[in-house]
Amino acid sequence: MNIVALIRLALMVALCLGATNGTARATDREALLTQPGVYGTFAAFQMDHDWWDLTGEARVIAVSEVKGLVEQFSHKLVIDSYLLRGLSDHADVMFRVHAHALSDTQQFLTSLLGTRFGRHLVATNYLHGLTKKAAYVPGFPEQMKQALQVSGEAGTKVYAIVIPIRKDADWWALDQDTRGALMQEHTQAALPYINSVKRKLYHSSGLDDFDFITYFETDKLDEFHSLIRALEPVKEYRHDRRFGHPTLLGTIRPLDDILELFAR
Amino acid sequence: MNIVALIRLALMVALCLGATNGTARATDREALLTQPGVYGTFAAFQMDHDWWDLTGEARVIAVSEVKGLVEQFSHKLVIDSYLLRGLSDHADVMFRVHAHALSDTQQFLTSLLGTRFGRHLVATNYLHGLTKKAAYVPGFPEQMKQALQVSGEAGTKVYAIVIPIRKDADWWALDQDTRGALMQEHTQAALPYINSVKRKLYHSSGLDDFDFITYFETDKLDEFHSLIRALEPVKEYRHDRRFGHPTLLGTIRPLDDILELFAR
Amino acid sequence: MNIVALIRLALMVALCLGATNGTARATDREALLTQPGVYGTFAAFQMDHDWWDLTGEARVIAVSEVKGLVEQFSHKLVIDSYLLRGLSDHADVMFRVHAHALSDTQQFLTSLLGTRFGRHLVATNYLHGLTKKAAYVPGFPEQMKQALQVSGEAGTKVYAIVIPIRKDADWWALDQDTRGALMQEHTQAALPYINSVKRKLYHSSGLDDFDFITYFETDKLDEFHSLIRALEPVKEYRHDRRFGHPTLLGTIRPLDDILELFAR
Amino acid sequence: MNIVALIRLALMVALCLGATNGTARATDREALLTQPGVYGTFAAFQMDHDWWDLTGEARVIAVSEVKGLVEQFSHKLVIDSYLLRGLSDHADVMFRVHAHALSDTQQFLTSLLGTRFGRHLVATNYLHGLTKKAAYVPGFPEQMKQALQVSGEAGTKVYAIVIPIRKDADWWALDQDTRGALMQEHTQAALPYINSVKRKLYHSSGLDDFDFITYFETDKLDEFHSLIRALEPVKEYRHDRRFGHPTLLGTIRPLDDILELFAR
Amino acid sequence: MNIVALIRLALMVALCLGATNGTARATDREALLTQPGVYGTFAAFQMDHDWWDLTGEARVIAVSEVKGLVEQFSHKLVIDSYLLRGLSDHADVMFRVHAHALSDTQQFLTSLLGTRFGRHLVATNYLHGLTKKAAYVPGFPEQMKQALQVSGEAGTKVYAIVIPIRKDADWWALDQDTRGALMQEHTQAALPYINSVKRKLYHSSGLDDFDFITYFETDKLDEFHSLIRALEPVKEYRHDRRFGHPTLLGTIRPLDDILELFAR
Repeated sequence: MNIVALIRLALMVALCLGATNGTARATDREALLTQPGVYGTFAAFQMDHDWWDLTGEARVIAVSEVKGLVEQFSHKLVIDSYLLRGLSDHADVMFRVHAHALSDTQQFLTSLLGTRFGRHLVATNYLHGLTKKAAYVPGFPEQMKQALQVSGEAGTKVYAIVIPIRKDADWWALDQDTRGALMQEHTQAALPYINSVKRKLYHSSGLDDFDFITYFETDKLDEFHSLIRALEPVKEYRHDRRFGHPTLLGTIRPLDDILELFAR
Repeated sequence: MNIVALIRLALMVALCLGATNGTARATDREALLTQPGVYGTFAAFQMDHDWWDLTGEARVIAVSEVKGLVEQFSHKLVIDSYLLRGLSDHADVMFRVHAHALSDTQQFLTSLLGTRFGRHLVATNYLHGLTKKAAYVPGFPEQMKQALQVSGEAGTKVYAIVIPIRKDADWWALDQDTRGALMQEHTQAALPYINSVKRKLYHSSGLDDFDFITYFETDKLDEFHSLIRALEPVKEYRHDRRFGHPTLLGTIRPLDDILELFAR
Repeated sequence: MNIVALIRLALMVALCLGATNGTARATDREALLTQPGVYGTFAAFQMDHDWWDLTGEARVIAVSEVKGLVEQFSHKLVIDSYLLRGLSDHADVMFRVHAHALSDTQQFLTSLLGTRFGRHLVATNYLHGLTKKAAYVPGFPEQMKQALQVSGEAGTKVYAIVIPIRKDADWWALDQDTRGALMQEHTQAALPYINSVKRKLYHSSGLDDFDFITYFETDKLDEFHSLIRALEPVKEYRHDRRFGHPTLLGTIRPLDDILELFAR
Repeated sequence: MNIVALIRLALMVALCLGATNGTARATDREALLTQPGVYGTFAAFQMDHDWWDLTGEARVIAVSEVKGLVEQFSHKLVIDSYLLRGLSDHADVMFRVHAHALSDTQQFLTSLLGTRFGRHLVATNYLHGLTKKAAYVPGFPEQMKQALQVSGEAGTKVYAIVIPIRKDADWWALDQDTRGALMQEHTQAALPYINSVKRKLYHSSGLDDFDFITYFETDKLDEFHSLIRALEPVKEYRHDRRFGHPTLLGTIRPLDDILELFAR
Repeated sequence: MNIVALIRLALMVALCLGATNGTARATDREALLTQPGVYGTFAAFQMDHDWWDLTGEARVIAVSEVKGLVEQFSHKLVIDSYLLRGLSDHADVMFRVHAHALSDTQQFLTSLLGTRFGRHLVATNYLHGLTKKAAYVPGFPEQMKQALQVSGEAGTKVYAIVIPIRKDADWWALDQDTRGALMQEHTQAALPYINSVKRKLYHSSGLDDFDFITYFETDKLDEFHSLIRALEPVKEYRHDRRFGHPTLLGTIRPLDDILELFAR
């Protein structure tokens, strides 16, 4: 198949052009992914049906434009890509963008939507949140603190899940100590899954219609399911006015894989 | 009608090509359908209106591609097909996919969506769940356990119904014994229908916006209706925050029948 | 106008071809419309905008196909047609199909959707229910039973209204006697309208997202409105978790009238 | 601009043709607008995007067809037109139709939708209600009755607002006297606005998913806003299960103005 | 790139033509933005996918028409423009229009929608509100009144957020003093953010489905997030029946920037 070869070549060239300043970015990438005060955006898109009316060649050209764009923004943004197609209805692709400013994220996403590829994307869900220092952990017992420091299995996971949450007014009306006690119960229930399910929290009150975005990575979806099942009986769960809606489920994929799928 | 003959021929050829390794797969199929720890996906699609603008010949070519694809994936997936068209609004076709890993299911569904047929499918509902060992049955009285072992009438049923369920926070806050007692009352109400309505449960907390997917097969929809009616007065039903929405109703059909309908 | 004449001629020919076995079907039609254990489907459709891009001639050919199809199925189905256009937003046409099996209804509706006319229909609402013997009437006082046997004014009514209902869990948790007493109060409030508003009940738990489909026919919409207003103060109404959504309002029309409207 | 002149000419000709029997209709118009037992329909439409692909000339021809149609129906219907475009999202035009029978309204709206103009209209909201004699006013104190007879400022108002309302079951369960007392409190709060805001009530239980359609006309939207604000603290407001959703806001416009806007 | 140069030139010419009477308008602009009794409309639009099928030249012509239109209306309206694309799903552009009469706003928006640019806009959210004198501030302690007079950092901010709010019936049933006390607690919680987050309130009861539109401008989204988080534990928040849905997040941008983005 000539066209697949052509895609791969185009993507490889784009990759090489961008690769020169790859090392320099490593530290900032680390900072964006681990420090508080960073904005995380989850942007899910659906491919419109007109895309498939393009010729194979036109699609190859369209996707190669994206690759270059992502490279170009990677000096100030960390951009992760996910394939939702086949696992989430109404969404095909998701980008997670970490940035020091949402205006940078906007610049990237508007540029993306302006590409020949992006003009066929329909934005289905945008969620924005802010990373913060853990609010309740300082009050937890020492043993729990230590348990939480386990870094989990290394390497890239297969699956990612995004569950946005909105708390009820009663939750926010509780004093900090009471909420701390409830979060300790929550954390206790979650501890057995700390190795198999990576978890990251974004605070989103005011930035979208939720209070939190909970993001999960795992190789073992059954373990992830057990984690959620373990959290449902906990008292804090009663304060979730909305949990999911949408629940976004996908696989973590290099951008090349995703683009190739749509170029084929 | 030449075109119908052509479809049948095309489908038959595809079938023959795939049939050689049919026997080998039988045991794994059985395992996927009966063991715990298996992922079940319900993927419902609507055919877009552009499909009908294709020529009859183009549609025949398009559907024959699907047949081959399903065969190709059947060494690791069990794929059942349902015709929802004419019974469920907003959905025409449904696939139930059993897999050891959702990444395999994703690979199949993205491949399906990439076919000439699939490019006209709009994903309307994806539900994912996990099979598990029965949680409450071990605590049931012996007599009930025995009654539950009745395997029901053999053979393929006519109708399939999918009802996803979300429990309220109160349900999960109950202790295991209390829930067990409530589920015993539920099971008692369901027992009279054990022969006429086959039932399968998938656990989906975290994998979609529900806690359970309940799947039913029956030849007698009035019996199925009576079953649901018998379950509504039971105390456990008060804890269903969401029951249905969507309720998916269709007939169990060989893929050939469904494809022929859309090729015609 | 030549085209209108052409439509009428085409429809008349179709009618004549189908008319020969009309008498034979009368008894089964009566049975389907009056006996318990019959499935009733309400299928509402919207005409897509592309329809109007067809030439007048193409539209005439398309609608004549429908007429023949309905005739063909009328040996086992009772199919009533309604014009919702101009009275219900998002729906133009509705069919009520009575059948001994929903698989027959499905066969008819998929055939309908496969016609040149049907390819332009968008399914907006499907509701399914089952007719049953009256559940509470046997416990009513003799006088009320007699009052209920009044058959109402004869002949075809002008308007039809469909209101689906979902009961809350509290309703189903009540014992049969308590529900009987509440339904007696309900029936008492409805009695004054028994002559002017025909009413038919379908049980739909499990077959769609409702528990009941209530269907009304009347020549006097103000009387129908008064009936509903009379039922709202009744205690049983407090158990309606959902009432309407959708409420479907239309006029009862011979299929010919409806088809002519879309062929014009 | 030739085209605007052409539109105006076309509309004027249509107007003249219809004007001959204008006087004769005045009394019936008055009756339809003031008597009880009349059906009021609010039909809101969105113009599809394809409309703008028509040539200017085609649009002029299309709108002139509407003008004639409205004239033709004005012997039995009172048809008012509103421009929602620019004030309500998802709706561009609204018609209020008063009729002695909804079947007449349906005939007009289906005819409208069948015109070259109407084929581009998407029905977004239909609301139906019935005018009735005031239910609670007879029990009000004399002084209030007199205050209610003030007819308000004469002449056409600028703005119209439609707010549909659904009451909760508790409201209907109250006895007539209690509801009368609550409505007296409601009316007392509304009295200061009787001159600046015209109000008309339609009863819609059973005819759509609401119990009432409240219709307002005013030149002073701030006064209208103050009226609504004055009604929110009243006890009766607690029984509004749904208030608005949709709230339709527009300007009262001669049909010519609206058609010209779409012909331009 | 010739086309970008052409856009800039076209926009500059439009700007110059409009600039002559710029000074004269300054005072009215100030009045519209600061006085009570002014109507504020938030109109969010999505660009349809057909837009991108236009040639570059056609897009340049289309956007230049908009620039002239905005100038033309700026003698009686204050029109601010926002880029939502890349930050809000389902909306690309937002206009905030301040006017003495909503009929003027309607005239502007219908004119906008009538341009070659506007014909590709889909109206996704319209919110209308009225500015009023502060209702509770007169009853606040002197110290708080003074703190509220801080005018914040000067100059244009980067981000704007719109959060519409609907209060519950209980809120409106509280007497003015109780509401005043609750708003004092609310204001106390908000005070620390008075410098970093500019805030403006619009009253919208009756004009749309909300009671208030809260509008925010900030350079520091983390401060804005902290403000919202500080307001959630306050008792008044319990009376928010709806908060957001939609939450509109974007950047404040000169119209030229936005038009250039869509012309490119």
